[in-house]
Amino acid sequence: MKRIPNKIYLSEKETPKFWYNIAADLPNPPPPPLGKDGKPCPPEQLAALFPIELLKQEMSRERYIEIPKKVREAYMTYRPSPLNRAYRLEKALGTPARIYYKYEGNNPSGSHKLNTAIPQAYYNKAEGIKKLTTETGAGQWGTALAAACAMFGIEDVTYMVKASAQQKPYRKIIMETFGAQVHASPSDTTEFGRGVLAKDPGCRGSLGTAISEAVELALKSEKAHYSLGSVLNHVVLHQTVIGEEALLQFAKIDDYPDIVIACVGGGSNFGGLAFPFIGKTLREGVRTRYVAVEPSACPTLTRGKYAYDYGDMGGFTPALMQYTLGSGFIPSGIHAGGLRYHGASGLVSVLKHENRIEAVALSQTDVFGAAVKFAEIEGLLPAPESAHAICAAMSEALACKESGEAKTILFNLTGHGYFDLAAYDEYNKGNITDAAYSDEELKNGLASLPDFK
Amino acid sequence: MKRIPNKIYLSEKETPKFWYNIAADLPNPPPPPLGKDGKPCPPEQLAALFPIELLKQEMSRERYIEIPKKVREAYMTYRPSPLNRAYRLEKALGTPARIYYKYEGNNPSGSHKLNTAIPQAYYNKAEGIKKLTTETGAGQWGTALAAACAMFGIEDVTYMVKASAQQKPYRKIIMETFGAQVHASPSDTTEFGRGVLAKDPGCRGSLGTAISEAVELALKSEKAHYSLGSVLNHVVLHQTVIGEEALLQFAKIDDYPDIVIACVGGGSNFGGLAFPFIGKTLREGVRTRYVAVEPSACPTLTRGKYAYDYGDMGGFTPALMQYTLGSGFIPSGIHAGGLRYHGASGLVSVLKHENRIEAVALSQTDVFGAAVKFAEIEGLLPAPESAHAICAAMSEALACKESGEAKTILFNLTGHGYFDLAAYDEYNKGNITDAAYSDEELKNGLASLPDFK
Repeated sequence: MKRIPNKIYLSEKETPKFWYNIAADLPNPPPPPLGKDGKPCPPEQLAALFPIELLKQEMSRERYIEIPKKVREAYMTYRPSPLNRAYRLEKALGTPARIYYKYEGNNPSGSHKLNTAIPQAYYNKAEGIKKLTTETGAGQWGTALAAACAMFGIEDVTYMVKASAQQKPYRKIIMETFGAQVHASPSDTTEFGRGVLAKDPGCRGSLGTAISEAVELALKSEKAHYSLGSVLNHVVLHQTVIGEEALLQFAKIDDYPDIVIACVGGGSNFGGLAFPFIGKTLREGVRTRYVAVEPSACPTLTRGKYAYDYGDMGGFTPALMQYTLGSGFIPSGIHAGGLRYHGASGLVSVLKHENRIEAVALSQTDVFGAAVKFAEIEGLLPAPESAHAICAAMSEALACKESGEAKTILFNLTGHGYFDLAAYDEYNKGNITDAAYSDEELKNGLASLPDFK
Repeated sequence: MKRIPNKIYLSEKETPKFWYNIAADLPNPPPPPLGKDGKPCPPEQLAALFPIELLKQEMSRERYIEIPKKVREAYMTYRPSPLNRAYRLEKALGTPARIYYKYEGNNPSGSHKLNTAIPQAYYNKAEGIKKLTTETGAGQWGTALAAACAMFGIEDVTYMVKASAQQKPYRKIIMETFGAQVHASPSDTTEFGRGVLAKDPGCRGSLGTAISEAVELALKSEKAHYSLGSVLNHVVLHQTVIGEEALLQFAKIDDYPDIVIACVGGGSNFGGLAFPFIGKTLREGVRTRYVAVEPSACPTLTRGKYAYDYGDMGGFTPALMQYTLGSGFIPSGIHAGGLRYHGASGLVSVLKHENRIEAVALSQTDVFGAAVKFAEIEGLLPAPESAHAICAAMSEALACKESGEAKTILFNLTGHGYFDLAAYDEYNKGNITDAAYSDEELKNGLASLPDFK
């Protein structure tokens, strides 16, 4: 067999020209979003916030959706991302397994989020939108949208959870450097924010509050829309560029994954990598295991309920059928901020519900241990979110060592950890603990689920 | 003409197997280093600090030096680096010029420094060395050596200038995450450091002090050596992997640079990119312009003197023939910390002395303006050091617009700016000024030159 290189590239001509829409291949696609009245959400309600093309993608049953030329041109500034063969890690673990990873950190947002920020900026621009609003917690999504808006010449207003803005000042600065207006939320720029501040002037904010502020500003501004970085079908669709590239890269080296692994927060990076492979399983019966990795502190897929729930705490968003811990479940302050979400993508949820994918929950100490080992061996400092996938991939590789099987493992390394060094410092000092929750907290979370009977 | 892709890659098989040693092609190579007595430095003095193979490289007149297999394997985790065609920037500037850049930030050190850290760790390991000591200011070099030592299983002790350790805590943490011991210098771990602290307990350190501590520890420890991240011939040699790759990449697309641009601190990234091209000029008479870019706050090549000088303030190092402002010249606290060096590589200096290369000094405000523009257009946030090369490349591209010439411009983008966001914040707020110096300060600096008559 020819030696497989450390990095498998694609030429520009070889890059995918289509996103893959798994809804076309699902026997039972997720049911429609519901409004507060329990009835399917009317399209007009969503059209005030999103451009028509994205809403079409949200509902589409077409298998392949063409990537517009201008989006492909912008992708070309950092895509295709390399498929890396982790030779050094394999050797260090002494495993017969072949370990591969897609690395999505080589772009200005430092994560996979730019893959959807670019088309969202493009479609909004094409429909005459002048301003996009959004919220950001950990900051990857906010950075991605800021970079994409700079590329397409759209104004960007981002509400950053105040606690994050204070803890991660670098994230705020990089967004501002790309020209974004960043407000620490709750802010005095919206009615909702002023209301929160009136009640609690010291409030350090939440994603729920930030979403409400961003939506309010979009609805009240001229030619403005709102933009979301995960969960929704069109967001996951855009991320499938990752998996479509990986399929082509594996074809080049005549290998194919037995196991595909990715972390799950809202679900877009998992879907982005895994859906094109799952499509082959659904259509052609290819046998591959798919492992979704979540933090044990926020075990949506492993301990949550499959039910209709809102995306935010206030119930401003439509309700989606999904795995959820209930919007009343407040995960402890773990360092993988991008995975602290009570729900999950409807598409990922239905796959889990039908046992087409596996889910595993990992503890924070194990995850940081794997991250540091990976950094030392492979020379790449991962984001704590991505380290969940690394940790699970290492476990699978060690299981191969045990069983003597030379399986092919693929995982998604979604981003770098340069903005997470305070967390690494805590780990180096031995201060990282396994954030846990009580049965009571889990019960209270599930009790917050809306009742649509 | 075939369309040139956004990124020009090389396969692993195509990557350079040799570093290029410009000393082989120079009509007048730099004269030997001198000791305090004004006589050529005895090899034993250097052998206490560096492995034999690196000293051989330091003195070598061979044109090509083979890259060891294990070094190539480690390079392969992040090399070859892409040659990027900056289409979006060309369009934004409206220039007929073709702009290309090598991007060296896609590795754990975030800069080109890893290209020499890896062979330095390798050669030391091969000679039975168990511990490397070094100093770091801005932190790129310290991070690179920490990552390389983790790869080769060597202990790493780094003295980080105390002021930097306090201003850039993330840099300290990333080194520690790679397993390095990081001491804020002056420290109480060396006699030299204790002496400094006894005189001034609040001392915030300097590169000179940190070098002295690192050298003392190397000399006093068992099986330990000292490691340097720029200036010396063997360091620049290792960096030529950048230019050798670029030569091969240009051959692939049937283009060739008319102008090669890089920033200069100690000179290793400039030499690394430009020397393989200068070699073609020296041997074959290929006409290319070479532009070394420095900050106007530390104008070594444009305002310095070509003379023997020490590498540090205390005169602990041998004296090298070089362009220098005198070790007594203290540049103002500009944000491109990696370019605040009073001297320059002997090889770069002799090329400037013989007018084989040009030098230009740029102001800090112009440089940050170019950096932010580049980030918005090309979607890549550069380190302030690298932004000097960007700024000069933009000027050349605008000159092409004026003259209507479709020149080919190549520059070195040495690293990302993720650890420099505090500086970008100052720029965004309008607080960045053109750090300057008085004629008096320049005179005092030059007056500090040693006298070897």
